[in-house]
Amino acid sequence: MPAYMEEVSTRAERARSASKSLGYASTEMKNLALRYISDSLIDNIDAIIQANKIDFDLASNSGMDEAMLDRLMLDESRIKAMSDDVLKVMALPDPVGEMIEMRTLPNGLIIGKKRVPLGVIASIYESRPNVTIDISSLCIKSGNALILRGGKEAFNSNKALADLVRYACEKAGLPEGSVEFIHNTNRELVTYLLKMNHMIDMVIPRGGAGLINVVRSNSTIPVIAGGIGVCHTYVDSAANIDDAIDIVFNAKTQRPTVCNALDTAIVHHDIAPVFLPRLAEQLSNAGVEMRGDARALGLIKDAGFKCVQASNEDWGKEFLALIIAIKTVDNLDEALKHIANYGSGHSEAIVSEDYSSVMRFLDEVDAACVYANASTRFTDGAQFGLGAELGISTQKMHARGPLGLKEITSYKWVIFGNGQVRP
Amino acid sequence: MPAYMEEVSTRAERARSASKSLGYASTEMKNLALRYISDSLIDNIDAIIQANKIDFDLASNSGMDEAMLDRLMLDESRIKAMSDDVLKVMALPDPVGEMIEMRTLPNGLIIGKKRVPLGVIASIYESRPNVTIDISSLCIKSGNALILRGGKEAFNSNKALADLVRYACEKAGLPEGSVEFIHNTNRELVTYLLKMNHMIDMVIPRGGAGLINVVRSNSTIPVIAGGIGVCHTYVDSAANIDDAIDIVFNAKTQRPTVCNALDTAIVHHDIAPVFLPRLAEQLSNAGVEMRGDARALGLIKDAGFKCVQASNEDWGKEFLALIIAIKTVDNLDEALKHIANYGSGHSEAIVSEDYSSVMRFLDEVDAACVYANASTRFTDGAQFGLGAELGISTQKMHARGPLGLKEITSYKWVIFGNGQVRP
Repeated sequence: MPAYMEEVSTRAERARSASKSLGYASTEMKNLALRYISDSLIDNIDAIIQANKIDFDLASNSGMDEAMLDRLMLDESRIKAMSDDVLKVMALPDPVGEMIEMRTLPNGLIIGKKRVPLGVIASIYESRPNVTIDISSLCIKSGNALILRGGKEAFNSNKALADLVRYACEKAGLPEGSVEFIHNTNRELVTYLLKMNHMIDMVIPRGGAGLINVVRSNSTIPVIAGGIGVCHTYVDSAANIDDAIDIVFNAKTQRPTVCNALDTAIVHHDIAPVFLPRLAEQLSNAGVEMRGDARALGLIKDAGFKCVQASNEDWGKEFLALIIAIKTVDNLDEALKHIANYGSGHSEAIVSEDYSSVMRFLDEVDAACVYANASTRFTDGAQFGLGAELGISTQKMHARGPLGLKEITSYKWVIFGNGQVRP
Repeated sequence: MPAYMEEVSTRAERARSASKSLGYASTEMKNLALRYISDSLIDNIDAIIQANKIDFDLASNSGMDEAMLDRLMLDESRIKAMSDDVLKVMALPDPVGEMIEMRTLPNGLIIGKKRVPLGVIASIYESRPNVTIDISSLCIKSGNALILRGGKEAFNSNKALADLVRYACEKAGLPEGSVEFIHNTNRELVTYLLKMNHMIDMVIPRGGAGLINVVRSNSTIPVIAGGIGVCHTYVDSAANIDDAIDIVFNAKTQRPTVCNALDTAIVHHDIAPVFLPRLAEQLSNAGVEMRGDARALGLIKDAGFKCVQASNEDWGKEFLALIIAIKTVDNLDEALKHIANYGSGHSEAIVSEDYSSVMRFLDEVDAACVYANASTRFTDGAQFGLGAELGISTQKMHARGPLGLKEITSYKWVIFGNGQVRP
């Protein structure tokens, strides 16, 4: 058996075994582990930045693109934000043991659902080292054992963070194996891990389309995936123009390298002559490359800003960069059709003061998150009040949108009888 | 393209297209279709029984075993029960459009989840023709389009029922393609259908372990499966003996051919000398074959009843017949360990008046349904108040236990803003 297989098997067995008692761990003990993680992030800022610098320099020298480098980079403020997010998870109610839909049936049986952990979760992720902390804190709080497999390019950062998590769990008294971090960077390891459906209950891939496809097509373990966000914002003829500019600008520029950033603005042709020149000015100042259809191109160029002709590949493309595609439409139906054709089911928004248009958009767009008059950048576990998130699901099974604590639990039916038999 | 592929493709496209408007169909219209189905079952009792007789005679002549024949058979009372179950689904609240967890965030965003249909569900099932009606009514009510693929041995029964469902949908004004029934009986058809993840959102196999394994290992569509029930009832030293006898007897004999029927009784050795002779008398009168471990065997034989030595294969076996395995244990821990080793995560029960033993059992047994002092035969959508069921899930993802209306929906996050952007 190759070394990587041995490592994965050992860690999976440890996690499986830990999951049994972790499922019963008290809220106090789990919160203590989270408190230790949060403190330890602050105490070790310098060491974490140092480890991250090794990864960053290697990646930078190997020619990694800017979007990826930005995802990789850790600085003091990002580490502090991670530490804060752990405290937010700590402050959330423990989902385990929650009793839901409890009721008494006519025959006297008392019946309901009790929330329980899923068991063992494996996370396979790329680049962003904060994922190590986010996922660890959510799994600890929800009583799930966790196997982490981060990207090679963030190995030193991830290892520093995972070591700190493991030490915090041990100090708090959680079972050994509650969080396992895979050291071997062999690529075949992932395929091997994805067949361990007898040991692992759920796989959450976080990364680009390539990673997600590999996981989906090789896994015999249930997968929750998503994260690929081709996000549209439709600026209706009845939009408040100031709101529309703020929302499109924010969704495109506030953090362009993430999945909930805007890719295509869809603009009603009635409002385009007023809206597009003002938007173009702001985007241009922020260094955003504009790719418009013929009408958008004309209006933006006439206003004195640079714009190129959008190609067919620009529709439905996740740019993850300061690039925006702009499409003009004649009506709401055309906008809905464009979104149905090119959206990835992640986050879609309408900006409009017209009540019926808003309600139709929210109803008919089939996506994890549908927005009226707000930036798609809010699609995020912390922003939604879930504490942190394990990822964003664009599938419909089990959970959709940001995956918080509840979304990584299952339940069991509990039935209290007093001698009932079925007639 | 072979004829079976063409049929599946055409039906899947029709279902996909129907699912779009079916998702918005009014509750009134969906209930009307259910009312027509319920009426039409009663109006066509004779025709259904006639169609079923063709299947039954063929199966009986080909040597189908009794458990399977019982599952296949339709009589007036079973058809009336099916008709009643449709009305129960009609009476349930429409799950579509329910808004859950709605709240206002500190930044003024109003956010919550709206329940939506999954889209297109495919059901692949064996033998029991009532599944055709159960699944159709739940899918219609929840706005999911449905593709039915029944077993060859029940083809005539299923077709008669599906025709009646399709006619009722049409009469109620639901879109064509809301319920599709596959006519071709080619076996390769299933493998082909299971790869249509771009057209079908969920597959629900219902049948034996063979069918479920075929579906699980060939599907690129998410699967919810279960149905294999290796069910235990633990009779504790502190059990009320009358209750224990009623519960074990009911769970074993009330309908032995179904998944929630008891397979193994686990008996505390302190109570065994009193409990087993009384149980053996009842079981013996009902023609149940007993297979005991050495202690159980001794006690039952001493009491004058027939019992054979249980083999290793009897533990963890789903009998689906009037056969019971009986194991004696020294304590609760041993019972829990036996269930953890041999249970299929379906339904497990304890009979005990000892509070702490009951609470430990309910907490520590990892199964879809855990019972205190009641028969496992209650694990059923209708019995749980869900109207009917699409199946019983023994997995932890998405839904566990009986699958009712809510369990075949997803949700989308709906966000009402007034200009919010992310700081």
